[in-house]
Amino acid sequence: MKAPWITYRPALKVLDCTVRDGGLMNDHHFKDDFVKAVYETNVESGVDYMEIGYRNSKEMFPKKEFGAFRHSDEEDIRKITGDHDPEATGLKLAVMADAGKSDWAEDILPSSESVVDMVRVACYVDQIPEAVEMVLDAHEKGYETSCNIMAISVVQEVEVDQALEALVQTPVGTICVVDSFGALYREQVDMLVRKYMDATKDMGKEVGIHAHNNQQLAFANTIEAIILGANRIDATVDGLGRGAGNCPMELLLGFLRNPKFKIRPVYKLLEEQFVKLRQELTWGALVPYNITGQHNQHPREAMALLDGDDRDQYLAFYDRIVGDI
Amino acid sequence: MKAPWITYRPALKVLDCTVRDGGLMNDHHFKDDFVKAVYETNVESGVDYMEIGYRNSKEMFPKKEFGAFRHSDEEDIRKITGDHDPEATGLKLAVMADAGKSDWAEDILPSSESVVDMVRVACYVDQIPEAVEMVLDAHEKGYETSCNIMAISVVQEVEVDQALEALVQTPVGTICVVDSFGALYREQVDMLVRKYMDATKDMGKEVGIHAHNNQQLAFANTIEAIILGANRIDATVDGLGRGAGNCPMELLLGFLRNPKFKIRPVYKLLEEQFVKLRQELTWGALVPYNITGQHNQHPREAMALLDGDDRDQYLAFYDRIVGDI
Repeated sequence: MKAPWITYRPALKVLDCTVRDGGLMNDHHFKDDFVKAVYETNVESGVDYMEIGYRNSKEMFPKKEFGAFRHSDEEDIRKITGDHDPEATGLKLAVMADAGKSDWAEDILPSSESVVDMVRVACYVDQIPEAVEMVLDAHEKGYETSCNIMAISVVQEVEVDQALEALVQTPVGTICVVDSFGALYREQVDMLVRKYMDATKDMGKEVGIHAHNNQQLAFANTIEAIILGANRIDATVDGLGRGAGNCPMELLLGFLRNPKFKIRPVYKLLEEQFVKLRQELTWGALVPYNITGQHNQHPREAMALLDGDDRDQYLAFYDRIVGDI
Repeated sequence: MKAPWITYRPALKVLDCTVRDGGLMNDHHFKDDFVKAVYETNVESGVDYMEIGYRNSKEMFPKKEFGAFRHSDEEDIRKITGDHDPEATGLKLAVMADAGKSDWAEDILPSSESVVDMVRVACYVDQIPEAVEMVLDAHEKGYETSCNIMAISVVQEVEVDQALEALVQTPVGTICVVDSFGALYREQVDMLVRKYMDATKDMGKEVGIHAHNNQQLAFANTIEAIILGANRIDATVDGLGRGAGNCPMELLLGFLRNPKFKIRPVYKLLEEQFVKLRQELTWGALVPYNITGQHNQHPREAMALLDGDDRDQYLAFYDRIVGDI
C-alpha cells in the first residue's frame, strides 16, 4: 500500500472564487474591506488565482442594483488590488463572463490594459457555440482562459462529449467540471473527470473541478477529482457561494501537501470577516439544499424557501420538489 | 462505463445511532418524545437497526447526572418501544457498551430477557482483550455483536492488523471502521476498509463504517466504504453526534437505492424535532472541528472552545492545536 497523499503535485493550482460565487447570495454587495481581506488572504495563503467577480452585462445587471463585482470594472478591481503584480504576489486575477449575460466583445479589454490575467467563460451546454467564441476572443486579447460548462449533472453524456470535442479545438487552457446543483456522487464525478481528462490529454490543457455542497460532498468530490488528475481546483473561504456553497478553502488547504499553501491566514480571515458575515447571509448544506441536490435540481427553489417564513417546512418542500420531477 | 449505483445491494443494512452518539452532546438528556419520534421514524424509514443508547456503568455515569440512554435500562427502552417486535417492525434494537466503562457481565441480560437484539462493543485498540471478552459474553447471551475500534486514525497499521486478527477469531458479526476524529481522507478510508474486508473475508462477518464529519467527509467516506463493500452503515438524523456529528441519515437514504428505505419520514422528523433541537445544541462541521479533524486530534478541545466565550477565536485555537502536536 502506497500513500501518495503524503506528497503533492506541483502542477495543482487553487482558484479562490469566494467573492464571485458568494456574490450570488447578496447581489455582490460586499464592502471593499471584505474583498480586500479576501485578496490579501489569497496572497498570504499562496492561492494561485482569485476570481474576483463576474464581468457581466450592465444592462442585465444594472449598477444601481448590483455591487461592483458583478461587473468587476478595471477601476473597481484596482481599488482592491492596486496595480496588482502576479509575479510579486504569486496570485493571478480572474473574472468570470457568462455566455448570454455578458457584453464580452466590448467589456473585456485587451489584457495589456487590464489587471486581469484569466477569463473564465461560464456557459450552459446549449451555449457552447458562444462559449467557443468567448474563449477565442479572450485568448486573442491575451488572457489565460477556462471554460466552465455549468449544471453538468443534467447534461446527457453524448452532449458532454460533443461539447468537449468543440472546446478542445480552441485554445482554452482549462475545462472545468461544474456540479452547479451539488448533485453528483463520487462515481459520477469519476466518470466526468475521466472523460474530461481523456478529451484534453496531450493537448496542454488542464481539467478543473468546481463543486457545490448541497449534499456535503463538495470537498470530497474535489478530493476525488484531484486524485484522478484535475489540476485546477476551485474553492471558497467558509464554502461561501450560491445556496449550499462550494468546497471550503480551509478544508482544501488542509488536505493539500504543497508547502507553498498556508492555511493560517484563512483561519484569520474566517475569524475576522466570516463570523460577522454569517450573521448577514445564510449559506451551507441546509436541508432544503440537500433535497434539491438529491433530486438534481437547481437550488433556486430552496433559496426562495429559505428567504421566506416557511424555511423549516421541509416536508412540504420535499413533496413539492419530488412532484416537480 | 457501468453505473452500479443505479442498483443496490440487499445485504447493506443501515444503523441509526442518533440518540446514542447524539447523547454525547447533552449527557443523554433527551425527552422521551424525542427518542420515540426517532424510533418511529426508523420503523417508517426501513432503517435496519436503532442503537438507542449506551449500556454503560451507573457508577461512572450516575443516573442523577445522565439521561436514561447512557444506561438504556430495559424498562427505559420499553417506555419508548413497548414490547418491540423486530419481525413486525423490520427494526432491530442495539445498545453500545464501552470497554472500560461498562459493567457488561452484569448489566447485559440474557437476550431472552431483553428487548435488545444487538450489542455493539466500543473499544480503543489497547482494550481489544476486554472487547474480545465482551463480544464472547454478548454472543453467549444470544445477541448479534459488533466491535467498533475507535479512533482508528491514530492507530498504527501493525496494531490494526493485530486487533483484526484477534477479533476475527471471535463470533463477532460486524467489525466497524470508526473515524472518531473525523480525520480520515478517502484514500485512508480505502486502505482501512480493504484491510477489514480482507480480514473478514469468507468468515461470515460484515464490515461497518462509522464516520465523523469534522472535515465534511462523513457522508463521502461512508459512500466510499459502501463502494468497497461495507454492508453495515452508521448514520444519524441531521448528523447529530459528538462534536462535528456523523453521516447524516437524510443524505445516506437519498443515496441508497433500495426501495425499502423511505426518506420522507426523516424529513418529517427533521422538521418536527430537529429545528428546535438546533436551538438547544450546537453540532456540525464548525471551524474548530475542522481544525481538530485536520490535525487528527480528539474533538474535546474544540467542544470546550465552542462552550466558552472564545468560540470564534479560530486563530488562537489553530495555533494551540498545531502547537499541541
